[in-house]
Amino acid sequence: MPNQSSQPIDLNRVFQALADPTRRAVLERLISGPARMSELAQPFNMALPSFSQHLDVLENCGLVRSRKVGRVRTYQLAPQPLQVAEQWMAEQRAIWEVRLEQLDNYLLNLKEKTDD
Amino acid sequence: MPNQSSQPIDLNRVFQALADPTRRAVLERLISGPARMSELAQPFNMALPSFSQHLDVLENCGLVRSRKVGRVRTYQLAPQPLQVAEQWMAEQRAIWEVRLEQLDNYLLNLKEKTDD
Repeated sequence: MPNQSSQPIDLNRVFQALADPTRRAVLERLISGPARMSELAQPFNMALPSFSQHLDVLENCGLVRSRKVGRVRTYQLAPQPLQVAEQWMAEQRAIWEVRLEQLDNYLLNLKEKTDD
Repeated sequence: MPNQSSQPIDLNRVFQALADPTRRAVLERLISGPARMSELAQPFNMALPSFSQHLDVLENCGLVRSRKVGRVRTYQLAPQPLQVAEQWMAEQRAIWEVRLEQLDNYLLNLKEKTDD
C-alpha cells in the first residue's frame, strides 16, 4: 500500500531530501521505473541500514512511495513534491527576470535622456 | 567586494540552504533588490547572530553575495545556483514525462491488440 500519499508537501523536507547526492541518485534511478531496495542499493558502497535511512527520508517527504509484497519492498517515484519545489524556483526566476527587464528599461531611458 | 563568486556550484549546499523557510524568505526579499542586513532581519523575530548564520549559509553556497561599506553590509541575490538547481529538477521532469508518454503508447498498443 502506498504510504503518506495524502500528506501536504513540506518544502523544507523536500529540499532537505534533495541535499544529498545518494538521495538525488536514487530519484534519478526511480525516474526510469520502480525498483526493489536491493537494486537501488546496488550502485552504492553503503551498509543497507544506512541506505535504508536515505530511502526513509525520501519517503517521509513524499518523494517516493513504497510497497511490500512478501519480503520484498519496491519503491517508486512520486513526482508531485519535485513539481512543487520546481514551481517555487520558477516563480523566483520569473520575478527576477521582470526585475532585470525593469532595470534594463530604466537604464535605456536614462541613456536616452542623457543622449538628448 | 563580492565573496566567493567564482566557486563551483554545490547542489548539496544549495538544496540545504533552500531547506529553511527563513532563508527562502530572505531570497524572496532579495529578488526585489539588494538590502542591508538590518532590513533583511526586520521581519523575523530572531536574534541577529542567529539571523546572520542564515545569511552565511546563503552566502557560502553562492546564493547571495555581500559587500561591506563602512559598518554596513549589503546583500544581493546571485541567481546562478538557483538556476542550476532548477535545471536539475527540469531535467528530471523531462525524463519522467518521456517515460509517462512511453507508458501511454505501450498501453494504447496493448489496447489496440486486445481490440483486434
